[in-house]
Parts: sequence; structure tokens; C-alpha cells
Amino acid sequence: MSVLVVGSIALDTVETPYGNAEDSLGGSALYFSSAASLFCPVNVVGVVGSDFDASKISFLKKRGVNFDGLYVESGDTFRWGGRYHKNLNQRDTLFTYLNVFESFQPKIPAQYRNAEYVFLANIDPTLQLQVLDQIKKPKLVVLDTMNFWISGKRAMLDEVVKRCDILILNDEEARELSDEPNLITAIHKISSQGKPKTLIVKKGEHGAVLFHKNSFFFAPAYPLEKVIDPTGAGDSFAGGFLGYIAKSGNLRLSTLKKALIYGSAVASFNVEDFSFNRLKKLTMEELENRYQEFKALTRF
Amino acid sequence: MSVLVVGSIALDTVETPYGNAEDSLGGSALYFSSAASLFCPVNVVGVVGSDFDASKISFLKKRGVNFDGLYVESGDTFRWGGRYHKNLNQRDTLFTYLNVFESFQPKIPAQYRNAEYVFLANIDPTLQLQVLDQIKKPKLVVLDTMNFWISGKRAMLDEVVKRCDILILNDEEARELSDEPNLITAIHKISSQGKPKTLIVKKGEHGAVLFHKNSFFFAPAYPLEKVIDPTGAGDSFAGGFLGYIAKSGNLRLSTLKKALIYGSAVASFNVEDFSFNRLKKLTMEELENRYQEFKALTRF
Repeated sequence: MSVLVVGSIALDTVETPYGNAEDSLGGSALYFSSAASLFCPVNVVGVVGSDFDASKISFLKKRGVNFDGLYVESGDTFRWGGRYHKNLNQRDTLFTYLNVFESFQPKIPAQYRNAEYVFLANIDPTLQLQVLDQIKKPKLVVLDTMNFWISGKRAMLDEVVKRCDILILNDEEARELSDEPNLITAIHKISSQGKPKTLIVKKGEHGAVLFHKNSFFFAPAYPLEKVIDPTGAGDSFAGGFLGYIAKSGNLRLSTLKKALIYGSAVASFNVEDFSFNRLKKLTMEELENRYQEFKALTRF
Repeated sequence: MSVLVVGSIALDTVETPYGNAEDSLGGSALYFSSAASLFCPVNVVGVVGSDFDASKISFLKKRGVNFDGLYVESGDTFRWGGRYHKNLNQRDTLFTYLNVFESFQPKIPAQYRNAEYVFLANIDPTLQLQVLDQIKKPKLVVLDTMNFWISGKRAMLDEVVKRCDILILNDEEARELSDEPNLITAIHKISSQGKPKTLIVKKGEHGAVLFHKNSFFFAPAYPLEKVIDPTGAGDSFAGGFLGYIAKSGNLRLSTLKKALIYGSAVASFNVEDFSFNRLKKLTMEELENRYQEFKALTRF
């Protein structure tokens, strides 16, 4: 079963304590695709400018990522620049040039409209709604968002949350969305008010938590000594998560738990190097080995 | 097998968002004992003032806690006052009256000097060394400390660390002790420099991590919606941890992992109410049930 993702395609300029990368491939749709394509075919809807070098995404095409929904508009590709702090948990945005992304109106190609598994990457909730209106009968909609939309477009975001099955937030966003300092209370509150069937809260170096039908499940973060570049961690996590679910074809709690671990495992590889340098060469065998390592991290 | 603990006995005045308690029983030695005594006999060495009401600790005596090492000095008992912030992860100390604790020189009763399992609760490292000098041949020394000693008595603390088998820190202390922002790097560094065989880092709402012979093991925090009073969480954690080890009588990795879960489970009960209100009535059956719940929280 394939997965549909609608999100950004960007050229990132990133500085971390371990070095920097300039105009390197980035964007939520691509990080997601790179991870999800380890499990199933992926269909991308997004936009790039006429300056975009298509050869940069050939490694994704080889992995079964379909770009029939990639629109090339005249103008420049979306660019983002950020600098990570020494602890790598915080970052400053140095610049955001939306460029062609500013007027992006996601048009879902006819052949994608029967999509069953949909990932709405972090974009304007108005656009996320437009996407959902074009999908006939999705089996599972996974939604990502960010503080910017929680504070800036709350009513619209609430509409999208109502129509999603799984909402992915980080801990800061969960606290902001619920206005609760205790994360567990925040999760209960979001779950009862927004009513997404399932909630995932990413806690960075502290792992991730899944809340499904009143059950909690915790995944640790893989104990990496050196995080080189956290960019794309959240989207590659979502890709591993949804890719595994789509491949499994069911929404049982046991599947969701395994999916959370696969998501965590892919993300742990992603941060080992800049841009797609690590995910590009990641094999399913390496991923399976790390999945087994995750077992040892919590089994008693 | 019994456990020996040397630490504070206090009267705490605590304010949390859920209420307050005045001059209620507290102190590291008692929180530790309350938890450890669920598994094995406990011997306490500590000091109180002539104002101390001995009936307050009768519930511990009934649970097999021996107070032959409790010294009653003329003067007042150690008093601590603190106020927790809304998020309960931070607190301000309102007052600290050391009173009789100021001149405490731990004298280990002759019948305790063959102790095999020793917990050095968070006190001046000079006193911790004095304790170790009086113990003949401990099988396992578990050490707790705090930022105050890390910054104020580092050389002395390093001496104690060298003589302990298991060092327990919280994440902030681990970062300070190692001068490393990445917790995993911090753990590797402390482990290679200070050379405690085993390191435990408590991460509050994010659980705890055990590092033993180059292996990591993660315990989640029990997902409590309401933390009433976090006072004593760390010491009751240590009590559940060491109590289980002493009862098991071995130091296998599998034992340490289970001990970490028992420690986490006891601590999760402790914070459900002020002072010893919850631990006082905690049964082994309740603890076993929560231990099983911890399995479900991470098993996939």
C-alpha cells in the first residue's frame, strides 16, 4: 500500500556544532519520503522553483518515490536557514524565503486521490484542509503541525485535527495546544478535546510517546553520542512510522507500537549526518538491526 | 539481605500547586527506607533533634526498618522548606535549617559494619567517606549527590565516586559533573572518568536511564496525570532500586534492569501524595501491579 505526502521541498542552510551545509536538500515531504520509501511506495505532492536541480532527488525515485505531484513553478525554491545551539535541542531560524512555496496550492493528481494513507506535513492548515477535500476516502490521515499554526491559525488547525486520525506534536507544541504544563495531562486534554484517535508526542532526546485508546506506549530515543544535524528528524520519524503502518495494512495497537519504534529508528539514523547523507545509504538491514537494539533498550 | 542507609531525617514544609504540608516527615534516609523496606530489612543511620516525635516513624519500624543508628541530639531536627513551580519540575528552596544535622558525624553501630548493601544518600561527601571508612567490606555501594557538592566539594566527591559501584544523578547533575550538554556523551564521560561500574540518570517526567558495562537501559516515567508532591521521589526511587537488588542478592544486568523499574514504580506512588501519605499504605501487591504496567508501557 502506498503513502501520499503533501509538504515542503526546500534547500536548507544549516549550521550545527559539527559543521554546516549550504543549500542542501531538505523539506518535510522529502525527509518523510526518504524514510517511508524503505517500507512502501510514496507519492509526493509539492512545489519547487525553476532553479531546482532534479538530479538531487534521483535517489528517492530509485527507492520508489513518485513525483508526479511535483510542480515546478517559475521562481526560486523554498529556502530555510537555521543554526543549532550547542545542545542541539534548540535552534534559531536565520532566514525563511518561501519563494514559490508562498503561493503553493496543493493540487492532488487524479491518480493519487484514492490514497488510503496520507501524511499532512507541517504546512498552513488551510492547505492541509484543501488536501483532505481532494482525497476520496482516506483510511488513515496523519497530521503534523507547529507552534506557528497553533498560535496563528488555531481555528483552522482545529478543523484539520478533527479530520485526522493521528496527530503528531512535539512536547512544546502539546503543552501549547493544551495550555497544560504536565505532558500527560496535556495528552489527555488534547485527546478528549480535539479527538484525534491517536496522539504522538515527540520528546527529542527523551524519545516519543504514543497515546491510543487510553493506552500509553513509550519509545526511548536511541542513545546517540553525536547528533550531527537534527534537521528532518521529525519528518523522517513520521515517514518510518506511517511507512510501516501502510506496509502492515492494519491499525492495531501492536502495529502502532512497532511503527513508533521504526519511526524512532529511522530518525536516529537521519540525525547522524547532514541533509540526506545518512538516509540516502540506509539499508533495511541496518534499520532492522537498530529496531532489535531498541528492544534491548527497554526489555526487562 | 539488609540494606544500610545514611542520610537525612527532616521535617519538611512543602508547597505545591495542589496544596501544602507543614513540618511533615521527610529526609532522604526515610524516603529511601520506606521504599527499600518493601523488599528487605533496612538499617538507618541519621540524626534528629530532641523535638522529634518518634511516633512519626513507627510505621517504618513495623515494616522492618531498624533505627539503632538513629541519634537524638539536643536541639532541633533538620528542617527544609520548598515551593514547587506549576510544572512541578522546578522548585525554590524557601529555607534550610540544618540544626542538629549541621554537626552530624555518622557513627555506624558495630552491628551494621558488615553491611553488604549501602546507600549513601545526598549528604556532604566528607561524611560519605567517613561512612565508607567504617564499613568493612561492602558488596555494593550506591551513591547519591547533588549540584551543591558537585560545584562546592568536587575533589572530595570524586573520592567517593571512586569508591562507589553505582552513582545516581539527575540529568542536570550529570551535565554539570561532565560539563557536557548531550546526556549520552555526559554518561560516557562520567563512566570513563569517575569509573563507577554503573550509572543511573534520573530524568524526572522522562524516566530514568541505566548505564552498565556499555549497555543502556531506559525506564519510562509512569504516566501520572497528577503529581501532588515530588519531594522524596529520588530517594524512594533509590530505595526501590537497592531494596530489590539486596533481595535478589546478585548484580546481573537483568537484576539491575528490574531494580530500575521497581525504583521507578515506587517513586511514582510516592509523588501521588504529600510526605509519606502514599508510601505508608503502599502494598507489595500494588507495587507488583504497577511493575506489570511498566512492561506494557514499553513492550512491542
